[in-house]
Amino acid sequence: MTRFKLTIEYDGGDFVGWQRQENGMSIQQALEEAVFRITGEETLVQGAGRTDAGVHALGQVAHCDIEKEIAAEKLKDAINYHLKPAPIAVLAAEVAPAEFHARFSATGRAYLYRIVNRRAPLSLDRGHAWLVNAHLDAAAMHAAAQVLIGKHDFSTFRASLCQAQSPVKTLDRLSVHRIAEEIQIIAEARSFLHHQVRNMVGTLRLVGEGKWSRADVEEALEAKDRTKGGPTAPPDGLYLTRVRYDAD
Amino acid sequence: MTRFKLTIEYDGGDFVGWQRQENGMSIQQALEEAVFRITGEETLVQGAGRTDAGVHALGQVAHCDIEKEIAAEKLKDAINYHLKPAPIAVLAAEVAPAEFHARFSATGRAYLYRIVNRRAPLSLDRGHAWLVNAHLDAAAMHAAAQVLIGKHDFSTFRASLCQAQSPVKTLDRLSVHRIAEEIQIIAEARSFLHHQVRNMVGTLRLVGEGKWSRADVEEALEAKDRTKGGPTAPPDGLYLTRVRYDAD
Repeated sequence: MTRFKLTIEYDGGDFVGWQRQENGMSIQQALEEAVFRITGEETLVQGAGRTDAGVHALGQVAHCDIEKEIAAEKLKDAINYHLKPAPIAVLAAEVAPAEFHARFSATGRAYLYRIVNRRAPLSLDRGHAWLVNAHLDAAAMHAAAQVLIGKHDFSTFRASLCQAQSPVKTLDRLSVHRIAEEIQIIAEARSFLHHQVRNMVGTLRLVGEGKWSRADVEEALEAKDRTKGGPTAPPDGLYLTRVRYDAD
Repeated sequence: MTRFKLTIEYDGGDFVGWQRQENGMSIQQALEEAVFRITGEETLVQGAGRTDAGVHALGQVAHCDIEKEIAAEKLKDAINYHLKPAPIAVLAAEVAPAEFHARFSATGRAYLYRIVNRRAPLSLDRGHAWLVNAHLDAAAMHAAAQVLIGKHDFSTFRASLCQAQSPVKTLDRLSVHRIAEEIQIIAEARSFLHHQVRNMVGTLRLVGEGKWSRADVEEALEAKDRTKGGPTAPPDGLYLTRVRYDAD
């Protein structure tokens, strides 16, 4: 039996999310079915990040165990072949040590959130960014974001359905910058609570619009209460860009 | 009556192209119907570039004449409202002089062609780029592209259905550069023949793969014969990015 590490890109728009669910097709199920068509084996494809419905990935990482003898490169091409026409692409496949676990071995996760800040509706970016009409001050958003850096109880930014044992996380990076009409927010941490990035982005939007100050964000964080945070930003703009492992 | 200049972005994937046709919805028709819903007037929306089915625009320019009194900013918002859910967005609307003509006043057009150069299929970029599996040498493509710069008879790169009176055009820029796995080709000229950019890109791909040399491109150009050129690249990767006018 061989454990494979897969690096995966997908458009989350047509899926119920990463994780298998009763109510529709998930990325995980699509991958597991592709592996089954190649190997005849029922395999669990374990992902590093359980992205929600509509959330995309540029560099999701997953692992799976396969009995059949197959070279990593061939497995990659075969999965991609059997995934068609689903908008999922395996970018890399490699043999991993038996103790490698995509989720539990991960030491860092990076997300990108894209806001298109203009009045006109989205066309080419539809489903791939959050359209915000009101002008946003990216510098103010960045400054306010810095109060969230470090080890905190992030209950204010935690979905009610979050299954994490503790609301305490260490946020390593939360940077906001503008490129023409687009605002990009980059978030990095060992791990995140459910909806944490989207809830932080929804809060920073309030700062960008001038409705909230940096002090308001600090107060919201200290309240440790979801009702004191800003609204949840939509999934469309969120991308899991990279998963880091100690060896990297 | 007021003449308006519109700057328009669209995802060409769902349309038969810019121009009105019997066999499906065009960008032009979608815009004309939106204007009709606002003004009750049957208006001709004249575009600077008649993009083909599947070709996108980041900065198409068009003009139209409207009898009804309406401010440019309000017209823009109203067209966008009535275009929903079509993936077309009016980015700007302004009052133009009566002699302004989106097509005939244009003094320059710029296109971007996006190639994603990798083995894995497209997911997020599906319909928005050309997937080329074989490794492409972008530097060789750029060098070969330079033989096409200047005033030439471009019959080798001209679609058989092209309605231009002359095959002679002046190509101002054709540059090729790589950004990670993406190859971007930028083409600029006063105007282009039908399929000219896609035919040049299809030919440069042969150079990138090492099948053609710079001298082969030169020979093909001199042949003034479409059958001596490379294949037509698909529309998916092509974007009309900017239309220039003398006043700019």
